[in-house]
Amino acid sequence: MNFASDNVMGASAPVLDAVVRANAGALPAYGADEITKRVERRLAEIFERDAAVFLVSTGTAANALALATLTPPWGLCLSHEEAHVIEDEFGAPEFYASGAKLAGLPGVGAKLAAGTVADYLERLKQGRRFMPPHALSIAQATECGLVYAPGEIAALAEVCRRHGLKLHMDGARFANGLVAAGCSPAELTWKAGVDILSFGGTKNGCLAAEAVIVFERGLADTLGYRVKRGGHVLSKSRLIAAQLEGYLAEDHWLESARHANRMAARLGAGLTEVPGVRLAWPVEANEVFPILPRALDRTLKAAGAVYHTWSDRSLPAGERVGPDEVLVRLVTSFATEEGAVDRLLLAAGRGGSRAAAE
Amino acid sequence: MNFASDNVMGASAPVLDAVVRANAGALPAYGADEITKRVERRLAEIFERDAAVFLVSTGTAANALALATLTPPWGLCLSHEEAHVIEDEFGAPEFYASGAKLAGLPGVGAKLAAGTVADYLERLKQGRRFMPPHALSIAQATECGLVYAPGEIAALAEVCRRHGLKLHMDGARFANGLVAAGCSPAELTWKAGVDILSFGGTKNGCLAAEAVIVFERGLADTLGYRVKRGGHVLSKSRLIAAQLEGYLAEDHWLESARHANRMAARLGAGLTEVPGVRLAWPVEANEVFPILPRALDRTLKAAGAVYHTWSDRSLPAGERVGPDEVLVRLVTSFATEEGAVDRLLLAAGRGGSRAAAE
Amino acid sequence: MNFASDNVMGASAPVLDAVVRANAGALPAYGADEITKRVERRLAEIFERDAAVFLVSTGTAANALALATLTPPWGLCLSHEEAHVIEDEFGAPEFYASGAKLAGLPGVGAKLAAGTVADYLERLKQGRRFMPPHALSIAQATECGLVYAPGEIAALAEVCRRHGLKLHMDGARFANGLVAAGCSPAELTWKAGVDILSFGGTKNGCLAAEAVIVFERGLADTLGYRVKRGGHVLSKSRLIAAQLEGYLAEDHWLESARHANRMAARLGAGLTEVPGVRLAWPVEANEVFPILPRALDRTLKAAGAVYHTWSDRSLPAGERVGPDEVLVRLVTSFATEEGAVDRLLLAAGRGGSRAAAE
Amino acid sequence: MNFASDNVMGASAPVLDAVVRANAGALPAYGADEITKRVERRLAEIFERDAAVFLVSTGTAANALALATLTPPWGLCLSHEEAHVIEDEFGAPEFYASGAKLAGLPGVGAKLAAGTVADYLERLKQGRRFMPPHALSIAQATECGLVYAPGEIAALAEVCRRHGLKLHMDGARFANGLVAAGCSPAELTWKAGVDILSFGGTKNGCLAAEAVIVFERGLADTLGYRVKRGGHVLSKSRLIAAQLEGYLAEDHWLESARHANRMAARLGAGLTEVPGVRLAWPVEANEVFPILPRALDRTLKAAGAVYHTWSDRSLPAGERVGPDEVLVRLVTSFATEEGAVDRLLLAAGRGGSRAAAE
Repeated sequence: MNFASDNVMGASAPVLDAVVRANAGALPAYGADEITKRVERRLAEIFERDAAVFLVSTGTAANALALATLTPPWGLCLSHEEAHVIEDEFGAPEFYASGAKLAGLPGVGAKLAAGTVADYLERLKQGRRFMPPHALSIAQATECGLVYAPGEIAALAEVCRRHGLKLHMDGARFANGLVAAGCSPAELTWKAGVDILSFGGTKNGCLAAEAVIVFERGLADTLGYRVKRGGHVLSKSRLIAAQLEGYLAEDHWLESARHANRMAARLGAGLTEVPGVRLAWPVEANEVFPILPRALDRTLKAAGAVYHTWSDRSLPAGERVGPDEVLVRLVTSFATEEGAVDRLLLAAGRGGSRAAAE
Repeated sequence: MNFASDNVMGASAPVLDAVVRANAGALPAYGADEITKRVERRLAEIFERDAAVFLVSTGTAANALALATLTPPWGLCLSHEEAHVIEDEFGAPEFYASGAKLAGLPGVGAKLAAGTVADYLERLKQGRRFMPPHALSIAQATECGLVYAPGEIAALAEVCRRHGLKLHMDGARFANGLVAAGCSPAELTWKAGVDILSFGGTKNGCLAAEAVIVFERGLADTLGYRVKRGGHVLSKSRLIAAQLEGYLAEDHWLESARHANRMAARLGAGLTEVPGVRLAWPVEANEVFPILPRALDRTLKAAGAVYHTWSDRSLPAGERVGPDEVLVRLVTSFATEEGAVDRLLLAAGRGGSRAAAE
Repeated sequence: MNFASDNVMGASAPVLDAVVRANAGALPAYGADEITKRVERRLAEIFERDAAVFLVSTGTAANALALATLTPPWGLCLSHEEAHVIEDEFGAPEFYASGAKLAGLPGVGAKLAAGTVADYLERLKQGRRFMPPHALSIAQATECGLVYAPGEIAALAEVCRRHGLKLHMDGARFANGLVAAGCSPAELTWKAGVDILSFGGTKNGCLAAEAVIVFERGLADTLGYRVKRGGHVLSKSRLIAAQLEGYLAEDHWLESARHANRMAARLGAGLTEVPGVRLAWPVEANEVFPILPRALDRTLKAAGAVYHTWSDRSLPAGERVGPDEVLVRLVTSFATEEGAVDRLLLAAGRGGSRAAAE
Repeated sequence: MNFASDNVMGASAPVLDAVVRANAGALPAYGADEITKRVERRLAEIFERDAAVFLVSTGTAANALALATLTPPWGLCLSHEEAHVIEDEFGAPEFYASGAKLAGLPGVGAKLAAGTVADYLERLKQGRRFMPPHALSIAQATECGLVYAPGEIAALAEVCRRHGLKLHMDGARFANGLVAAGCSPAELTWKAGVDILSFGGTKNGCLAAEAVIVFERGLADTLGYRVKRGGHVLSKSRLIAAQLEGYLAEDHWLESARHANRMAARLGAGLTEVPGVRLAWPVEANEVFPILPRALDRTLKAAGAVYHTWSDRSLPAGERVGPDEVLVRLVTSFATEEGAVDRLLLAAGRGGSRAAAE
């Protein structure tokens, strides 16, 4: 019952198979191999658009490289105040952007509203001395598991356009957000105004495979150099390319995400039936954020459930975690088994005898 | 007949098997997994010493992180003027060291003599305004395929100690250098005075696996943070750890290096028998640097041989590449087959009918 | 009636005279001159302690250099969310600290309470992934003109000590804060736990003269290099040193600050007598922050008064700026004449006929 | 007899007077004052061209800011291997350019020939992996006191244009070079192809006043932000502006440079008459580089002469400093008196009784 994160499992079978298949034979190094070219073509197909693609091994690298490309060292990049780029990347964006500043804005469920961003930018420009804003970064899904709909992204993109900002999407859980949004990859990104996407593969079944996808090629002029001097060009570049080839083949990536989201939905629905439990935010992708009685938290852990406590900074207005409660995060993945979900629900005493009877 | 580099092949079988084996089951992320711990213990065993170990996916990252740890932003790091850290890493060391400066010194075969370093440091200190020197970086093997013997390293380390510098070894081809030197890993590193080692696995049979090994733990205090903000901590950290586990098991890594070196020796010996061909530097590890008549170069390429031309800046005194000649580099690896070596020698017309008769 | 800032006037007469006097004759460059040495001795006398001193020409340089000395590139520096180092220095601290992050905390009047800092640090350490906090920076006086008493500083220093942080004081208006606090320079700084002080001279009567004073010499080891590579070592170093010599002679600096504070007190007291006007924060140093009816604001400007509108983010609980009001800042300096204060009050209609009658 | 540098004296009388005059009255801060605007207009007049101008207090800041503007963090800036930007600025260019690399090229008298630069660029592009070259920086006058003629600059600029590099001139001694070249400021800079000039005032009679002059305004887009986050915008900006106003009024700056050059010529001519003394490089601006017998060096120092020994790396082919000789540098300035020159020559025993008789 490991719900700690979607990075505790290895690769899915199709991804691992692709790595094994790609291992044979001599191939040019540093991204000049055929597998990399095929992945680039596959991504262009998926996103219905030619784009510049850079393969890297971590999401932090993808985000930091993307933000540095959009924001000069004296510039400002806006984001939610609980965004991964602000809270969890140990200053990687600031490092890659040579000292640029990340400004954190509030929003329920770690989601930014267009009005919040617009207000911030207006207020900023009334000040006398400010670093110029250059980019906005949003996470799909958010740190609280919420999904931006295409219309919401378009509204944010419109604010960006009006103020001269570029829009970055941190898609560490892009696939989960995508199948939740129920639209096409293009509709969720460049058609809605996203300029650069960190396209995550690792959490959804790869071992270490992320792609920075730059929809406007002109924005990518410096990115190749940034990746190199970050030490993020694998000499045996087939390693990342092969993972993505396996990942993207025959909609395997979408199937994996659908499974993870289904497991989260099952988990969330089950938990709401447990007395004393409520969800901090609705389950939209592959994360569930219940507020648990502390006694139940202890019971679940004793039963072997693994998960993390979570921040309560972005709760909806009026909601709060009581002194005898704890807000936790449960993450499902391509590898989560229905049995594990049900065992956790059983341990939680969902529906009394009903759960046991199932 | 691909002799372009030791990074054109995938992983050796034991390495790939280890990755496949490590894929199953849930494991803690970010380096807290058991495989990583086992690799750390294995390295301690191999180097006969407790050390701080950081696993990363590229040699550039390993080198840049190591040099940044040793050199403050206003400091100087000495190296051979043709060193990989100076010529081939697109400023990664300067990036990770926030602007520190690399100073290039001359030396035949890309090898630095203790006297050269000592003279440079003396001259430097006679100047009125200089950035303080903090580190020396040497490559094992060098860019021209030469190997530092333990005594040569100790002499350099003595100069370092006298002037307050730390000593880094770029071991992208550490295994090849080690089996050539015929001593123990400890004798080639910390016992000779090396403070930090970039321990390369990728070129010798891994897919993407390097370790920064800090022999004096006190030097490693900041390295964890540096790795994180460089975006070089894999969430599914088992990927690199598993490669190294397979690599280091039962001396597989040493066998691979011995094979590569044997193939290079065979290739070098054969080429010297070809009329008009001479070696720029002796074959000591897994690289061969013949000076070829241009006609022969064309013949070999027509026959399908793949390799790169090479720099002539570090030739021995008196040696030069004539107008009708070309200096090239041929690299062998764990995967180089004897047959490929012999086919190239045959194409080169080694020993006339003799080669054909073999 | 220019109350825009304390940097709109040139130098006070003693400061200018000192510059003129110091101009004659040959002196060693780059800080090796006798005047610099005398200033260092004078500062040691004033602060009752040997300290490392670095003279620079701007407050931004002083602050950025100090914070970079205390905070590594992967570290966190806490400050008030409206602090000059966060809002007004265009990323200079992040630049000098190679990407370190500044975290802004709330507090009425831009003043930080020890409890606020302690709570933040506790919460931070409950997170799973965070940049380590290394420094706290407070401004004396604050952006809203408030003064930290020695006891308040000591309470903050105690929190810092407990969590391993160093304490920096941005003393751009140190003299104004000092005479307001009514204690000794030592009591306001190192005796209360301040580790590094940006000692400002420019706003209080110099032209461009600030000193970074490091009370614990060990902390200053790298600062000399940082100043040099920032391009902040004047070759004709006498220029800054002479200003400070004139500034610090015979308590001229204290007299200037006392005058400025007196003018601010007079201005503040007068404004509170104007109907419809109230002060956002009490007048403690040389800045006055009235909330004005918009009509009065227009009247004052029409009468030739110069000043800036100000941020209302740090108002006391319950206070707010109404739709027909505006919050402004009026700054007095060593050069503010009583007549100018009274003319402004007259224009404001203070006390009706009474002001006119005076 | 202080010939240590042209920065050992204070300001010339017209410069100091201008500072004193500018001190009175309220002026807007941060460069918005009228004096700054007048200086910008005066420079446009002198250079016969509209240009973007940024006033800073040190030459190191001017150079580092200029080079950072021309060279991205992953780029290469070429310069002479003994250039001030490489040897004497403690990594300031690397700091401001966020890690860009400076490549040093050889040349007699610290002067670069167009052919040397062209050859370097050709060789660079034959390598497989290199940081892209973006800028060339030359010093006027050079570290060995030589002056680039407009034709020589144009030849370098042509190489730059062909390879896509921008051309920077480090004009710490621009005035001395200019009066030596005998052409107009425009002819020595933008008409010959210089893109950015560090226009030095400090060495030639200011206290701390340098201007970064960007002839192509488009290149200056980011420079304002760079200056701010470097902490190089004086709040009381009149200080630097006033110095330059005094400096540039009525050709005072040219007169000062002519005087300094005349004193250097007199000194150089006199020294060549001293037995055993020869000049390492011809005297072209305000620096004299004699190779002295060690005995004479001792005699001069005993007589009170102050000067520095100098590097012999850029001697003309065939020239060398013997074991009983020493290469030294003597610098003259606006403030050097003929009497001091003659006293030194007398101490050197120039022309025996003749010098005494003069």
